[in-house]
Amino acid sequence: MSRNINDQRRSKSPLAILQDAQNSQIILRLKDGTEYKGLLKEIDAYMNMILKDATEIMDGSPVAKYSEIFIRGNNLLFIKPDASEIM
Amino acid sequence: MSRNINDQRRSKSPLAILQDAQNSQIILRLKDGTEYKGLLKEIDAYMNMILKDATEIMDGSPVAKYSEIFIRGNNLLFIKPDASEIM
Amino acid sequence: MSRNINDQRRSKSPLAILQDAQNSQIILRLKDGTEYKGLLKEIDAYMNMILKDATEIMDGSPVAKYSEIFIRGNNLLFIKPDASEIM
Amino acid sequence: MSRNINDQRRSKSPLAILQDAQNSQIILRLKDGTEYKGLLKEIDAYMNMILKDATEIMDGSPVAKYSEIFIRGNNLLFIKPDASEIM
Amino acid sequence: MSRNINDQRRSKSPLAILQDAQNSQIILRLKDGTEYKGLLKEIDAYMNMILKDATEIMDGSPVAKYSEIFIRGNNLLFIKPDASEIM
Amino acid sequence: MSRNINDQRRSKSPLAILQDAQNSQIILRLKDGTEYKGLLKEIDAYMNMILKDATEIMDGSPVAKYSEIFIRGNNLLFIKPDASEIM
Amino acid sequence: MSRNINDQRRSKSPLAILQDAQNSQIILRLKDGTEYKGLLKEIDAYMNMILKDATEIMDGSPVAKYSEIFIRGNNLLFIKPDASEIM
Repeated sequence: MSRNINDQRRSKSPLAILQDAQNSQIILRLKDGTEYKGLLKEIDAYMNMILKDATEIMDGSPVAKYSEIFIRGNNLLFIKPDASEIM
Repeated sequence: MSRNINDQRRSKSPLAILQDAQNSQIILRLKDGTEYKGLLKEIDAYMNMILKDATEIMDGSPVAKYSEIFIRGNNLLFIKPDASEIM
Repeated sequence: MSRNINDQRRSKSPLAILQDAQNSQIILRLKDGTEYKGLLKEIDAYMNMILKDATEIMDGSPVAKYSEIFIRGNNLLFIKPDASEIM
Repeated sequence: MSRNINDQRRSKSPLAILQDAQNSQIILRLKDGTEYKGLLKEIDAYMNMILKDATEIMDGSPVAKYSEIFIRGNNLLFIKPDASEIM
Repeated sequence: MSRNINDQRRSKSPLAILQDAQNSQIILRLKDGTEYKGLLKEIDAYMNMILKDATEIMDGSPVAKYSEIFIRGNNLLFIKPDASEIM
Repeated sequence: MSRNINDQRRSKSPLAILQDAQNSQIILRLKDGTEYKGLLKEIDAYMNMILKDATEIMDGSPVAKYSEIFIRGNNLLFIKPDASEIM
Repeated sequence: MSRNINDQRRSKSPLAILQDAQNSQIILRLKDGTEYKGLLKEIDAYMNMILKDATEIMDGSPVAKYSEIFIRGNNLLFIKPDASEIM
């Protein structure tokens, strides 16, 4: 576990990993429990996102579809970066 | 997936995409579940907005109409940029 | 849709539109659902406001009147800039 | 409605109006609905206040009296600057 | 009501008044309604406090006693600076 | 009550008193009412903490034990610096 | 308890301890009570995290599994750095 200065800089990588998830399918959950599944088109440092072809899911059931949707980052609970790999 | 410096700058684009939605019909949802459908006249970096000819929607039903309304951005949950394309 | 530097600066205009509503009748709703109708005497960048001859409205019914009232901006949900034009 | 540079500076005046209410009777309401009526002795830019001879009011009824009380500004909903003028 | 530059500086005095309450008995109420009565040993600019010989009060009844307690300021609703003067 | 410049600097001491509680037993309560009792190993300026040999307490009963736990400071309600002195 | 300048700097160590937990099994609890158990792959200064092979736990029962998940730090309640040592 040899740590150096580069390791220190790597500490912002959770957001970098999200940046890498652009243009792939994701699932995200908001604080109110609503989930969205779709293509992550854009994400910024505040975790504001644009999803394409998104499905809104409440209590496990799809309730709406959106060709494009902007989601405000401050309501975010989690993001599953690769929706195709749900275990 | 060739990334360069321009890609880094592109990371603020979710808000830029909202800016592009000015003068088009949008649907937005606030944290309390209330939705507004109308013409996005103005939006700033805090997601404060001016909607024109807006309809207030609760539980899927229209409950009020406003010729012009200012909505504070910090209550925002999501924005569907093009209301005419609901799937 | 030709965009230029002036367009970029225009992105703070939702608040400017509220500034223009000074000295006109407005209706505002707070996060707890309470509404106030009155003359917008002053508003600052935090959306703190002074209303004159304000009526407090709960569940659609007037419950109190205030000759002058200061309302803290961080509780604001929306402002309808011209109360005389309700559709 | 001729606007100039001085008008721009005037946009912080809601707080200035509260400053002018020092040493007069006020009524304030907190986010939890509790109200306080008393002499506004001091108020700062965060709306922290010192009230003198204050009455605490819940559901319209006085429940306690305080010779002096410090109230934290971030819980504030509104202030009625002149308690003697209730309409 | 002659105002001058010194008056402007005085606008931070609510916190200064709390500083003066150090080493005297106070009563404070948190946002969740819990109250603490004790000797205010220290208070900082964020309203973090150390109370000595504090009694915790819920619904008007003492429920616990603490020889020393640190209370985080951001949960504070109000402080009654002189607990011995309850009216 | 002779005040001088050193007194002014002392106004950040509530956190300093917590720093002094490192390596002693504490009890803390979070905003949701959960309490933790254990050895305060580390605490930073945001009141993030590491507890050792901690017991989680809900409604007065122990519900879990942790050999080491990181607790995020922004959920903190209070800390009782010396758990061995409960009155 | 001889304190010196190095001790002052050590006051940010709760987060440093979390950094050391990278690549080990952790359990974390969010403010809404949901828990996640998995390999802490990355964590930044805002406590944003990437977990690998994570299990979502509600009311003590596993409800979902994720090969990789990004969790936003501002919802965090606590982290148990070493999941293998539950007492």
